[in-house]
Amino acid sequence: MTTAFTLAATDGAARAGTVHTAHGQFETPAFMPVGTKATVKLLHPDEVRALGAQVILGNAYHLHFRPGEDVIEDLGGLHAFSGWDGPILTDSGGFQIFSLRDTLLAVDDDGVTFRSVYDGAPERLTPEDVCEIQRRLGSDIAMCLDICSPARAPRAELEEAARRTLRWAERQVDAPRAPGQLRFGIAQGGIDPELRRRSIEDVVALGFDGNALGGLAVGESREEMLETVAWSAPLLPADRPRYFMGLGDTDGILGVVAAGIDMFDCVLPTRTARTGSALTASGRINLRNARFARDPRPLEEGCDCPACARFSRAYIRHLVNQQEALGLRLLSLHNLTFVHRLTAGARAAITRGEFAVYRAAALERLAAGPQEDPWDR
Amino acid sequence: MTTAFTLAATDGAARAGTVHTAHGQFETPAFMPVGTKATVKLLHPDEVRALGAQVILGNAYHLHFRPGEDVIEDLGGLHAFSGWDGPILTDSGGFQIFSLRDTLLAVDDDGVTFRSVYDGAPERLTPEDVCEIQRRLGSDIAMCLDICSPARAPRAELEEAARRTLRWAERQVDAPRAPGQLRFGIAQGGIDPELRRRSIEDVVALGFDGNALGGLAVGESREEMLETVAWSAPLLPADRPRYFMGLGDTDGILGVVAAGIDMFDCVLPTRTARTGSALTASGRINLRNARFARDPRPLEEGCDCPACARFSRAYIRHLVNQQEALGLRLLSLHNLTFVHRLTAGARAAITRGEFAVYRAAALERLAAGPQEDPWDR
Ligand SMILES: [Zn+2]
Ligand SMILES: [Zn+2]
Repeated sequence: MTTAFTLAATDGAARAGTVHTAHGQFETPAFMPVGTKATVKLLHPDEVRALGAQVILGNAYHLHFRPGEDVIEDLGGLHAFSGWDGPILTDSGGFQIFSLRDTLLAVDDDGVTFRSVYDGAPERLTPEDVCEIQRRLGSDIAMCLDICSPARAPRAELEEAARRTLRWAERQVDAPRAPGQLRFGIAQGGIDPELRRRSIEDVVALGFDGNALGGLAVGESREEMLETVAWSAPLLPADRPRYFMGLGDTDGILGVVAAGIDMFDCVLPTRTARTGSALTASGRINLRNARFARDPRPLEEGCDCPACARFSRAYIRHLVNQQEALGLRLLSLHNLTFVHRLTAGARAAITRGEFAVYRAAALERLAAGPQEDPWDR
Repeated sequence: MTTAFTLAATDGAARAGTVHTAHGQFETPAFMPVGTKATVKLLHPDEVRALGAQVILGNAYHLHFRPGEDVIEDLGGLHAFSGWDGPILTDSGGFQIFSLRDTLLAVDDDGVTFRSVYDGAPERLTPEDVCEIQRRLGSDIAMCLDICSPARAPRAELEEAARRTLRWAERQVDAPRAPGQLRFGIAQGGIDPELRRRSIEDVVALGFDGNALGGLAVGESREEMLETVAWSAPLLPADRPRYFMGLGDTDGILGVVAAGIDMFDCVLPTRTARTGSALTASGRINLRNARFARDPRPLEEGCDCPACARFSRAYIRHLVNQQEALGLRLLSLHNLTFVHRLTAGARAAITRGEFAVYRAAALERLAAGPQEDPWDR
């Protein structure tokens, strides 16, 4: 199981490598598009692959309730069901259960009781249940059920969450798995140095195939997050993949990659698309803005995505304003392409030993903001 | 201009041919997917082409208001704007203006005043205006502005509508056009034999590049519609394309093709998709039905569309139930593929001289309804 990760290059703390799974490998640093309900919203799996994604996310919580892991197992597992034959990582649902505080009914050492977001019915899940759901889904990487506390939670709550997360991790490390399925542990502890360090040591000691930092990018400041990941990522074993849960912006991605993180995911690129905005190297542009009404340029000059290859900002703005789904689809394709290009560029820079330069140049372009050119008037 | 249509084969009244336009040719009988607002809903132009479409529709009314023909002209015309480089036919908007009766303010011999569906503001369009809008859009086939009356309108109203439609047609036949743009006249007259015959004779006498039957499939019975088209389609010149406006179901398509119609269009395949239903040779299936929850089969056995090639009914049902746009997208791809397959089959059958057999077999399969097989339990 220690062969799940091979390291290709390092540059300072930053790493380039490969994660090997039962459905093929993926290169790191890897951004993982989110396909919560067995679909990356609006997109065909072939489009997702073509834009550079090598691994995608599913969510055990949502798939448990709709359509149910029994249905997906019946249909041959999540890969066959969703038409994506590459690596899939499934979130345990811990984030969903604990972030929707008003649906949470009770947590104890055995498990958690909460109301389903689908019908409000009380439901109970134990760590073993969540392993079993993921076994039946047949994902390639199964995440442990953990307890994610808000950034500003009192120390006692953070400590209790980390303690339960560890107890639960102990029960999940050897739980039954799908063939070849990897299981990742998750360290909690917020930005509290002592709690975070202890949680990492305890979870790592259990010997998971990979390790994640959970409970970050959940409300603390960007500086606090980057500082925490900078000292804590190197505490994760170097011979296994390191996953930062929930991050998708330029500054954040380059920050955690610099700290030695290999994998990250976020709904930001697709969610931003669905609000009518495009991510570019110089920042976000909102297509609803009237200044794009006759703009013949692509979303981003030089981008080779399916949106930029054919369509103007003016057309995409028209689609967005008219609630035509093709507009959100083209923006999703562009935004995911943008993040994958950023990540692939980071990998190439690490391999060349120039990651610091790459990061500084990207942040400088971002800070400069959208260039006013003659077209913008 | 009489070279816009070449006839390849006839079989009874049914015809197989080719329509030649400034943006290439298309084979007839031709189903034209509807891209009202410069997009076939949810689909990329390359997908639309791949499923067999050779010509698509746009709508001058909608594009006039959003984003405006000036914007589209600025961006290089409707082809460049929407990324579809094949033939485009633009509806004049007459159907929209006259079918939304509560937005209609006044009609006179000069033009029509109505409230825009976008903001309720009063607007006035003359036949010349509509020609100019279509000239600036740069479509390949421009439809005349006409007056479409409901099926059960009193005879006097039908007669007045046909009279005005003719007066307007006279002003449009020589109006300025985009380079190579064809213009089609439209005959009205409802199902009244005398009015319909007179309208056809009058419009045909003006010598348009092609001719359409308007004001059918607007509320009369299927029998009345088929009977009217059966005797009236042959009155349209044989050396020019004949267009039946607004028809997309199996029975209707085969009926008008039998009468000698070359072109037809309908929102039905894509609208049906967006309600979660699939068109099949044995009828419509609603994916929301619980019996599809674990159905591993494609929407239709033997279909080679992008939906059937990869995905199960169970998966598409899950997507539809979860309001995931990919579900409606896959259903749109399938439904349009279904109609194009039906139409291509009709063309092949006409060429072989076996259209009657083809039509009878298709209607028999449809009448038999969905086969209950072991899977349906
Ligand atoms: Zn792009
Ligand atoms: Zn199909």
